[in-house]
Amino acid sequence: MTIFQPMTGNNEFEVGYNIPAQIGMAEQDIQTPCLILDLDALERNIKKMGDYAKAHNMRHRVHGKMHKSVEVAKLQEKLGGAVGVCCQKVSEAEVFVRGGIKDVLVSNQVRDPAKIDRLARLPKFGARIIVCLDDVDNVAELSEAAQKHNTEIECFIEIDCGAGRCGVTKTEAVVEIAQAVDAAANLKFTGIQAYQGAMQHLDSYEARKEKLDTAIAMVEDAVEGLTGVGLKPELVSGGGTGSYYFESNSGVYNELQCGSYAFMDADYGRILDKDGKRIDQGEWENSLFILTSVMSHAKADKAIVDAGLKAQSVDSGLPFVFGRDDVEYIKCSDEHGVVEDTNGVLKVNDKLRLVPGHCDPTCNVHDWYVGVRNGKVETLWPVSARGKAY
Amino acid sequence: MTIFQPMTGNNEFEVGYNIPAQIGMAEQDIQTPCLILDLDALERNIKKMGDYAKAHNMRHRVHGKMHKSVEVAKLQEKLGGAVGVCCQKVSEAEVFVRGGIKDVLVSNQVRDPAKIDRLARLPKFGARIIVCLDDVDNVAELSEAAQKHNTEIECFIEIDCGAGRCGVTKTEAVVEIAQAVDAAANLKFTGIQAYQGAMQHLDSYEARKEKLDTAIAMVEDAVEGLTGVGLKPELVSGGGTGSYYFESNSGVYNELQCGSYAFMDADYGRILDKDGKRIDQGEWENSLFILTSVMSHAKADKAIVDAGLKAQSVDSGLPFVFGRDDVEYIKCSDEHGVVEDTNGVLKVNDKLRLVPGHCDPTCNVHDWYVGVRNGKVETLWPVSARGKAY
Repeated sequence: MTIFQPMTGNNEFEVGYNIPAQIGMAEQDIQTPCLILDLDALERNIKKMGDYAKAHNMRHRVHGKMHKSVEVAKLQEKLGGAVGVCCQKVSEAEVFVRGGIKDVLVSNQVRDPAKIDRLARLPKFGARIIVCLDDVDNVAELSEAAQKHNTEIECFIEIDCGAGRCGVTKTEAVVEIAQAVDAAANLKFTGIQAYQGAMQHLDSYEARKEKLDTAIAMVEDAVEGLTGVGLKPELVSGGGTGSYYFESNSGVYNELQCGSYAFMDADYGRILDKDGKRIDQGEWENSLFILTSVMSHAKADKAIVDAGLKAQSVDSGLPFVFGRDDVEYIKCSDEHGVVEDTNGVLKVNDKLRLVPGHCDPTCNVHDWYVGVRNGKVETLWPVSARGKAY
Repeated sequence: MTIFQPMTGNNEFEVGYNIPAQIGMAEQDIQTPCLILDLDALERNIKKMGDYAKAHNMRHRVHGKMHKSVEVAKLQEKLGGAVGVCCQKVSEAEVFVRGGIKDVLVSNQVRDPAKIDRLARLPKFGARIIVCLDDVDNVAELSEAAQKHNTEIECFIEIDCGAGRCGVTKTEAVVEIAQAVDAAANLKFTGIQAYQGAMQHLDSYEARKEKLDTAIAMVEDAVEGLTGVGLKPELVSGGGTGSYYFESNSGVYNELQCGSYAFMDADYGRILDKDGKRIDQGEWENSLFILTSVMSHAKADKAIVDAGLKAQSVDSGLPFVFGRDDVEYIKCSDEHGVVEDTNGVLKVNDKLRLVPGHCDPTCNVHDWYVGVRNGKVETLWPVSARGKAY
């Protein structure tokens, strides 16, 4: 393996080499492409969702897999009253536990023996650890590892309430797995995972409500079935940025799992609230941007910017240029973005703030968040769990 | 900034925590999702393209931005006679220069003052450094930095021969910039960059040929114009996996810049050779795979695997399952893939090799390549320039 020597006379961290900015720097001097956070907007989003959850007696377990940042999770605890995080991978859970988050749900199945072993070690580091199950065969695997490490793993039974991924669909299966958990050494049956992922991005509020009504009915049936065998769930968890009001008013959920509300993105921004207004025009603010620079303007009507597919994911569509209707990001290739600049208003080295199409996989390609306030860099946070896929 | 403590009793590198595999491990024990390389297939691809280039008297400057790996670049030098690399960012160039690559082209514009300064330092580390220009204003910027660092920067004038990104489109502009370079202190006019990026993925050989004929005509015109003012280019560089035979037989290009041929992907694989055969069924072999595991099979006909949008880019379509026609990857969300398993042949913890839709941005989300041969892990290579976007 090649070992690299530092290339600067100073130290390992120098702007451009390892970090995109330094604290105190003006926004226009940040090296691009990189992620920037509008700290004012971020803090307002976090506080607003926290206030909502509190007013509705909901625990808010923020979805850490969106930002993969210990610092953002801690801000969500401090300003938004978050009870902890959920995340999707054991490696993400390790990062959050190391960083000091005390209540961590892996809202996913863990089946590989090596991953189960790592999961079972985590409670030793002072955190409550919860994992999801959708297969009774997983119970013995988890119990054995928890016994080996002398720890307790809490368990949610996952209901597939419409996302079409992991999860069981029948109350009998929920009850069967919950009873097996309840009978297993070093496991605790704690509740239900029921996140309707597929409806979050439906534009119409009514269409989303209809899907959630179905989900809530499934969850109510499962709670009734569990209660009937003496296993009333302590936690019923789910809800995202496109649905949290439905779960909060359901009478059956008591924990939310919102993620994207904090940063927002172009795809979520397009969905409509109950008054038919885009949710990024009132309900939530864009706080996450890809800062990009014009690097070529050899054609009069096209500016080429430095944020392409390696600075973002376009699975949910292209980014839009924030705060400008005179220019438009129209094409994304590996290393470049093409910005339509009909009136030739942009020049080389001009910077634009792009709102990414989809925040989660976009954050996952970057190493740093540059936090800005009043045009200055205030903080630099690592994307702590970037690339933590296994 | 949160500083993390290691979580294992052993050392920083333990399978699962920081690395997906260990040398000697069986393929089925690799932690997923991760990238694996079939070393036999990779070596055959590299040798084949190297032999082709040699037989056609073409220099082969491999496109390092595809794999972002010093080790792969060195293998391309060793087995394929590569003369060096091209890459797209100053930060990538730094990684390749530190890693010992001696001839590095940044096949892109560099306009930010801080990046220009870093670029101008690079020749001090023992490498030939070439950069692309499409704006005469860039000449003074580069010259000033090269004088400051007492180095020489070589310059390619970039022609936009159809990609619609950076580059000039008229011979007069090529000549104007070349003359300015020639007159500038510490810069050297070396040649032409003319990579037709937009045609590489057209399915039909004839359609690709038509686009390349146009490109070649533009390049010939520019060479004639340059030669007329006493600036005959030393290098005329371009050509990708979907076009290298056209440039090689053009009589005007003398340097190739192929990247994807080494790994292949689903999108490139679909294009047809001149006999109408997919290029991944004879011309090149798939050597890059996303190794993924089944993590849930709660529905009889759907297997849920652990490679979603954070393990790949789907900008050019979904991955396909290598070597199997009984199962199909049909849906990709952030953390999951849905695999149609009509006959229920898969079970939890089964592993599949996925051929990614698009190799470049897929490699960019991973930290490691796991090199396998005969079912065993032979090597572990860092994706050295992963995330090097600025």
